[in-house]
Amino acid sequence: MNIRTIDWKNNKIKIIDQTKLPHKLAYLNIDKLKDLYRAIKIMQVRGAPALGAAASLGVYLGVKDYPGSDWRGFERKLNEVSRYVASSRPTARNLFWGIERVCAAVLKNKNKPISRIKQVILAEGKKIMREDMESCRLIGNYGAKLLRDNSTVMTICNAGILATIDYGTALGVIYRAKEQGKNIEVFSCETRPLLQGARLSTWELHKKGIDVTMIADNTAASLMEQGRIDMVITGADRIAANGDSANKIGTLNLAILCKYHKIPFYIAAPKSTFDLKIKSGSDIAIEMRQASEVSMIMHKKLAAASGAKILNPAFDVTGHELISGIITDKGIIRPPYKKNIARILGK
Amino acid sequence: MNIRTIDWKNNKIKIIDQTKLPHKLAYLNIDKLKDLYRAIKIMQVRGAPALGAAASLGVYLGVKDYPGSDWRGFERKLNEVSRYVASSRPTARNLFWGIERVCAAVLKNKNKPISRIKQVILAEGKKIMREDMESCRLIGNYGAKLLRDNSTVMTICNAGILATIDYGTALGVIYRAKEQGKNIEVFSCETRPLLQGARLSTWELHKKGIDVTMIADNTAASLMEQGRIDMVITGADRIAANGDSANKIGTLNLAILCKYHKIPFYIAAPKSTFDLKIKSGSDIAIEMRQASEVSMIMHKKLAAASGAKILNPAFDVTGHELISGIITDKGIIRPPYKKNIARILGK
Repeated sequence: MNIRTIDWKNNKIKIIDQTKLPHKLAYLNIDKLKDLYRAIKIMQVRGAPALGAAASLGVYLGVKDYPGSDWRGFERKLNEVSRYVASSRPTARNLFWGIERVCAAVLKNKNKPISRIKQVILAEGKKIMREDMESCRLIGNYGAKLLRDNSTVMTICNAGILATIDYGTALGVIYRAKEQGKNIEVFSCETRPLLQGARLSTWELHKKGIDVTMIADNTAASLMEQGRIDMVITGADRIAANGDSANKIGTLNLAILCKYHKIPFYIAAPKSTFDLKIKSGSDIAIEMRQASEVSMIMHKKLAAASGAKILNPAFDVTGHELISGIITDKGIIRPPYKKNIARILGK
Repeated sequence: MNIRTIDWKNNKIKIIDQTKLPHKLAYLNIDKLKDLYRAIKIMQVRGAPALGAAASLGVYLGVKDYPGSDWRGFERKLNEVSRYVASSRPTARNLFWGIERVCAAVLKNKNKPISRIKQVILAEGKKIMREDMESCRLIGNYGAKLLRDNSTVMTICNAGILATIDYGTALGVIYRAKEQGKNIEVFSCETRPLLQGARLSTWELHKKGIDVTMIADNTAASLMEQGRIDMVITGADRIAANGDSANKIGTLNLAILCKYHKIPFYIAAPKSTFDLKIKSGSDIAIEMRQASEVSMIMHKKLAAASGAKILNPAFDVTGHELISGIITDKGIIRPPYKKNIARILGK
């Protein structure tokens, strides 16, 4: 099975429309910036690494039809487009990193003709996609060493193919272990409110031939208590310099449950998810999304009593003290995180 | 607002059809045993204390038309009906306790005419309802002392009016605190898979004028981490002699999160929920319900990829070491539980 979450085809961004899964594997071909913005906002494309690629290609969509040939005007346009793309979602570091990458490439080439600079942007977006594919393989290689034959892994949300270009971070570790001949069983937390675990992870794990069981998020503690979980691996949206990691709401639950049950809890994420300018998790902006994602389910039916208030943070922050290790494309980072993140990922 | 979950009216069991909430407050008038069995099975009526009353009245429905006047035949019928009612759901202690209560009342009156014995059964069912109303008030009184003005309480599932006759256990504590003039804010975990928190607790708390916010279950850890939760109070379905408590799946999650964050975790339940014959939680039968409750949501839409396995335990067991206290109708029981449960609740 060959699935590619984001690609550049026929001068368009080709993405899987993840809001249609698991019912339908449908693609969107996006050639307008506002459609990309919407796709990010409503999570037709999501997952930190995928957002890095989407954002960089989005900048290209935003500037490619700029009619002038003057640097000043082009720079103004580039900044405006960058701010617009950056305003789509606040938490995932990679989205901002993708924009910064293309902007840095532009600055290096600012003396070239505008038409050439536009090609530099597109080339950088494509390079980000290639690098992500490579990063995921490296993460998979490093992480798979942690898994023995017949291990059982629990995960939340989707840090798989659908969160990256084509392989995944947390799920990439599982795919790599399977390629090495290990039998891995997975429990996929459904991940309310938007059910990325149920809709996306369960879908791709099943398609990849992994033995996957979906559970309501509430079932996690009970399975751990019964000794049925060997390890939890999740992705991350932004990792601070001290190792504190923002990820899908519910991740902190799992990390605390792991601490209590003495089960290893790992984060898997590429270097591009680290935000070394941020000292700790308390400085990470947590996106608050609309109440209807909780009160309605799959846009279908109001589950809550009308009139009740609803709180819908999309992420939580897992303190570094709860994390056994961070599996990156540069190796597995262990505590003390502040020191080891700087050593392994600092310039 | 006066809501009564179960009543005996016009020779029928009148119950709120809880599968219709929060969209519609609809009643069922049940005069056939098989309809009561189904109502328990599909959770039109649920909640441990409510099941105690429903089961006792159900036994009456099952034997009231027994045509004979011989004790032997009647006893055979009574046993058959009792076994049938008992087979509806396995975990809640009160359901079995309700059946045992009416059977014990019958045995005391076995020398009376069958028509008189039938009236004894009905009277016992009505007495169970009255006692439950009294128990809930007592639990409310004892528990409300734990809550200060402006406390914020988190709860899961529904241990309120709709889980009892008319007041609730965990939510009864909150109602009593409010009656005492205390301002209490509640976070109601939606409680996947069947959303009793979203559909039932949020509904009744809102109707009772309590400031309630509904959250996805995954949000619990994050709110605790932010210091926004002063106490967690839940109900229980069965409590072992050592204090281990079975309750809705996800309760164990909350108890562990409370331990980690040093937040008091209380169970509220009447004496009838205790099963002193059971030494510890590992002996409590955990009901496994059908996968479609997880894969479909509100019977509407398949959330999971087809082909994926699903695990759907309806309850988990919270070890007594995680419980700060058990608020009962006989007072608040504190550790050491084995000793104090025996002292306070033993004959």
